[in-house]
Amino acid sequence: MIIAADNLTSANPVVAQALKDLNPRPLQDLALLCAQNGAHLLDLNPGYLSRRHEDRMAFLVEAVQEVTTLPLILDSPNPRVLAGGLAACRDKPILNAVTLEAEKLEEILPLAAVHQTQLVLLLLDEKSHPPPTLEGKVALAVELRERCLAAGLTDEQLIFDPVLPNLRWPDAWPQTGADFQTVRYLASGSLFGVPVKTMVGLSNLRSGLRDMYPVQVEITVLALLAGAGLSLALVDVLNPALREQVQLLDQIMNNK
Amino acid sequence: MIIAADNLTSANPVVAQALKDLNPRPLQDLALLCAQNGAHLLDLNPGYLSRRHEDRMAFLVEAVQEVTTLPLILDSPNPRVLAGGLAACRDKPILNAVTLEAEKLEEILPLAAVHQTQLVLLLLDEKSHPPPTLEGKVALAVELRERCLAAGLTDEQLIFDPVLPNLRWPDAWPQTGADFQTVRYLASGSLFGVPVKTMVGLSNLRSGLRDMYPVQVEITVLALLAGAGLSLALVDVLNPALREQVQLLDQIMNNK
Repeated sequence: MIIAADNLTSANPVVAQALKDLNPRPLQDLALLCAQNGAHLLDLNPGYLSRRHEDRMAFLVEAVQEVTTLPLILDSPNPRVLAGGLAACRDKPILNAVTLEAEKLEEILPLAAVHQTQLVLLLLDEKSHPPPTLEGKVALAVELRERCLAAGLTDEQLIFDPVLPNLRWPDAWPQTGADFQTVRYLASGSLFGVPVKTMVGLSNLRSGLRDMYPVQVEITVLALLAGAGLSLALVDVLNPALREQVQLLDQIMNNK
Repeated sequence: MIIAADNLTSANPVVAQALKDLNPRPLQDLALLCAQNGAHLLDLNPGYLSRRHEDRMAFLVEAVQEVTTLPLILDSPNPRVLAGGLAACRDKPILNAVTLEAEKLEEILPLAAVHQTQLVLLLLDEKSHPPPTLEGKVALAVELRERCLAAGLTDEQLIFDPVLPNLRWPDAWPQTGADFQTVRYLASGSLFGVPVKTMVGLSNLRSGLRDMYPVQVEITVLALLAGAGLSLALVDVLNPALREQVQLLDQIMNNK
């Protein structure tokens, strides 16, 4: 399983401040810390940006590229922000993400196709909602994949993310269960005839709820999804308990 | 995932003493406690028994049957001990286990066939050794299944156990990884055309090593195997951390 650090996000006040001040140093320190703590990739998420701040993704890319050669994931719902980040990238990043929303299909998908990048497919419908069941998620995966293949991408470029819920959602547990089933089905290869890559953002589960739920929830969901064949996890690599879990899973799964 | 309590074992001094004294009460108290703590089945393991104590399995069966209707797993390498326990059972138990060892194939397999019980197939070779790789374990599964089908059992009656190592073994981590791969392969249905049942004894990992390794190892391996499709886990249901993990996994996996 590949681990991407989700720490370079504007939800982190240090990152938000550095982006505001156009100060590369704290971003670079954090990128290095993530690399030292086992990240294979860095997810860059500058958050919601007003028009005049859309250059912040490029700034973030340039800052971290000065100190690390780790591959990057550009994480934004805004096509212009992704385009700006992409232009600044030394190596091809992964774009995160397309959904079934019209704007994303019309502007983010072509960006991935023109630049032939890998692309995350969030299993969210036209209104950005996650279907509640395995069947709904699989139907979305089929639809989104067709759009991507028609646009000129290949299965090797696609990364399916069933979207872990926040535990505040009333249907959080059934959603997590359906996400688990979806990862297992996609990873088995029986849906598309080939196994496809899957990803989840683990921190979504307890976002804003760190005091209510123990980190054990993330630790368990990570192991469960690893068992189901998950390819890539976005993880808070600076959390010691999660880092230990990643090492334990590595120790078991890298030794077939 | 089905949970069997592994607490009724002679490795527990309370059980050993009660078996020695032919005192049913501590065994009954323990069986009730396991039932209250979420066990779906009880594994009964009277340990190594000399000839004149081979009746201890039947005593154990009779004791627990007086207080619970939970299904039983009779756990012994000794065919006579299994036969004695089987004769005392009100309902059909699961027999645990056959291996590729000649004595087991000649005496335990026929017992399961005659009484048409479910049977655990430990993936151990003629000398009771676990093969180190996925390929070796799968080859053993194929061989053992053929013997069982030839003896008149059906796939529905077979439960494959790849045998988790003790962490003291020099190749413990690669063994655990190969066990994980084996569970995933067997559960996927691609080996035999139908998914088959799988089981592990989780406590094997830290047996005698509780002070050296944290319970998190068992917790993580349980989630990983659950994700891989494990059917049945033998677990110390009286360990609060393991019980919480079982509840968390249930909460996620029972809601598809």
